[in-house]
Amino acid sequence: MIDIDQANQTAVSRMMEARPFLKRIDTAINVIPGMRDNLLLHAGPPISWENASGPLRGAIVGALILEGKATDWGSAVELVTSGQVDLEPCHEHATVGPMAGVTSASMKVYVVENVTHGNVAYSNMNEGYGKVLRYGAYSEEVLEKLHWLNGSFADIVNQALAEIDGLDIRALLAESLHMGDEGHNRNKAGSIIFATKLAPAIVRTNASDEEKAKAIQFLAENALSVLNPVMAACKAMADAGHGVEGSTIMTVMARNGTELGIRVSGLGDQWFTGPVGQPDGLYFPGFTADDANGDIGDSTITETAGIGAFAMATAPAIVTFISGTPELALNTTLEMYEITETEHSAFTIPALGFRGTPTGVDIRKVVELGIRPQINTGIAHKDPGIGQVGAGLVLPPTNVFEEALMAYAEKYLG
Amino acid sequence: MIDIDQANQTAVSRMMEARPFLKRIDTAINVIPGMRDNLLLHAGPPISWENASGPLRGAIVGALILEGKATDWGSAVELVTSGQVDLEPCHEHATVGPMAGVTSASMKVYVVENVTHGNVAYSNMNEGYGKVLRYGAYSEEVLEKLHWLNGSFADIVNQALAEIDGLDIRALLAESLHMGDEGHNRNKAGSIIFATKLAPAIVRTNASDEEKAKAIQFLAENALSVLNPVMAACKAMADAGHGVEGSTIMTVMARNGTELGIRVSGLGDQWFTGPVGQPDGLYFPGFTADDANGDIGDSTITETAGIGAFAMATAPAIVTFISGTPELALNTTLEMYEITETEHSAFTIPALGFRGTPTGVDIRKVVELGIRPQINTGIAHKDPGIGQVGAGLVLPPTNVFEEALMAYAEKYLG
Repeated sequence: MIDIDQANQTAVSRMMEARPFLKRIDTAINVIPGMRDNLLLHAGPPISWENASGPLRGAIVGALILEGKATDWGSAVELVTSGQVDLEPCHEHATVGPMAGVTSASMKVYVVENVTHGNVAYSNMNEGYGKVLRYGAYSEEVLEKLHWLNGSFADIVNQALAEIDGLDIRALLAESLHMGDEGHNRNKAGSIIFATKLAPAIVRTNASDEEKAKAIQFLAENALSVLNPVMAACKAMADAGHGVEGSTIMTVMARNGTELGIRVSGLGDQWFTGPVGQPDGLYFPGFTADDANGDIGDSTITETAGIGAFAMATAPAIVTFISGTPELALNTTLEMYEITETEHSAFTIPALGFRGTPTGVDIRKVVELGIRPQINTGIAHKDPGIGQVGAGLVLPPTNVFEEALMAYAEKYLG
Repeated sequence: MIDIDQANQTAVSRMMEARPFLKRIDTAINVIPGMRDNLLLHAGPPISWENASGPLRGAIVGALILEGKATDWGSAVELVTSGQVDLEPCHEHATVGPMAGVTSASMKVYVVENVTHGNVAYSNMNEGYGKVLRYGAYSEEVLEKLHWLNGSFADIVNQALAEIDGLDIRALLAESLHMGDEGHNRNKAGSIIFATKLAPAIVRTNASDEEKAKAIQFLAENALSVLNPVMAACKAMADAGHGVEGSTIMTVMARNGTELGIRVSGLGDQWFTGPVGQPDGLYFPGFTADDANGDIGDSTITETAGIGAFAMATAPAIVTFISGTPELALNTTLEMYEITETEHSAFTIPALGFRGTPTGVDIRKVVELGIRPQINTGIAHKDPGIGQVGAGLVLPPTNVFEEALMAYAEKYLG
């Protein structure tokens, strides 16, 4: 006889006990489990080139050019469609990537270790705003920036991380949630905390003054610089809660631009997938909803771990970016308490009397109450090569929770 | 016939139109109007040695030792009581200082210019936590830190300010208010913004790597590092609203540890003073209310300019430091709307639907409604040489508003 509540408590306790430390930066192929030279990782559940949306295709092409395997769109497509290059989900390799999430063998990745349970998660370098690979842009300037990020920048930050002996990302997040971040689309405070924790150690590296200044400035001015370490930290926390026999807690929620997929703690590595939603949000000047791609990215690992849209009550200023009102932000958090197992012991919301963030989505509650997990997200242009066009709110498809619950019934109650 | 409402609108509009830029760091005697070798500036309204409280006395002694004019308590007291050294309020020299606020001729000061109207304000270097002069400590370690702050640190930061061509403190404050700061006792976000704006330029200075790293680390880890530039910015804003004929807007509120004094826009340089209150707050381990000095410092220039306790609704996390609940923080801001002229056009509160902070205390409303301006404050030990013992909330004495209103009636309506 399975005690589901007990199993869920175990899963969520493990998620909250996890202490993710950013240990160092390394090359993807050296550290990501199962990474190989002819493999590209991508956001969301499994997908083929044929079904991939514009921004994911653009990022695949860009990554193959970055790797020196292709020279243009045509030669890149040939590699992927002929099977010379494989596509697999980041999540199947302990990795998470924002938006397209494409991660290739030579890219540098943040190595985040959950020092409580020992599991490790990875995420690549955040590219900042403008034309960037993760939104499907792959022009010369995009590749040039990637060369710098994976070269001088990663080297300097890695040296600095060694000097400060790693960084406690859970503590950083707890602090940034008290400074108006929700940890997914608003990482302004977290990113400058990240920059200031690293800056003195960066000064002490052997790089040139100009390279040091450039690295610090990028860390400080890119309000998403900490997003990728935060995502890897959330992955490390969520993974700690995965694999608990009998648990109905969601441990993965991710989108590839075409489909959204979830995984459930007690249901092993099975994906439950459905069509992605269209975000409802604010568009940058010159763009409209007609330009928007479907929901994309592994960044919903933040909501999975109890922050992001779930913590919006602590980040009322975010509504200037994603639309809505401060009341909406507050009510979103309040609603998420309905479908979660507990309140986070490390992440608290001052405006709610320091109540913990709603943590651990129970798929039973989602189906029973008809309340889906809220997602904050950036919005990519539907065509490759363009980039971000806005930011907004979106919901996962209903069927993934229903199908997961049916699979659960079959496995445990059948 | 005086149109008081019109005069008040003018005063407050000038306060809000003021754009304070941190231009550079210079030596007090070179830039502060009326500064001279045998003068010490102090917080609050005028006071004599005889009436000074412990922390102010300690800071006076420390400053005289720093200046090389005295060697110990006795020789310092002799200089002040014999009239060889004068004491005058910071506020009478376009200057503001936190807590004791003692500013001496050789100290370095932040130079903040209101580029809209051209007036300039000054504040010395913030010393961080622990044993510090502003709380009346004057031991060898206190003086050593002051030597570093007024030497290498000030030099490096000044070089960095020159490279970035100054810093818009109003913009910095507007951003930090969206990140959970209220700008007086919670400057966590503002201080790391300050650190990150300066850090790349600090790297490009000609200092040694070790001195650069030390300066950046101090700016980033001292959660009050931006307080002094913020106070000078608030002084520059408040001064822009001072001297408007017929206005009943308060443009100065400051405490010397014994008395609190206010000045009013339409009443020139006259001080209205009364006994300071005893802060009600949280004490550091080992201290109680019995150890507390009376309310002290020029930092209430923040409330005068529309932030600090007036903006507490945007800073719910502050209650862990000053006592109370997030509801108290919210209600404090709401109550301050009752006694202020307007809502700030540059400082907004996301949690209140981006409403502007309550700005411009109208002494008529204070007297009529019996609602006094709320103050957040650090609490000093009553004995010299010890330092900070806690933080909390306090109110100004009622009589200062009544007396100011009577003086107003005499001047304008008599």
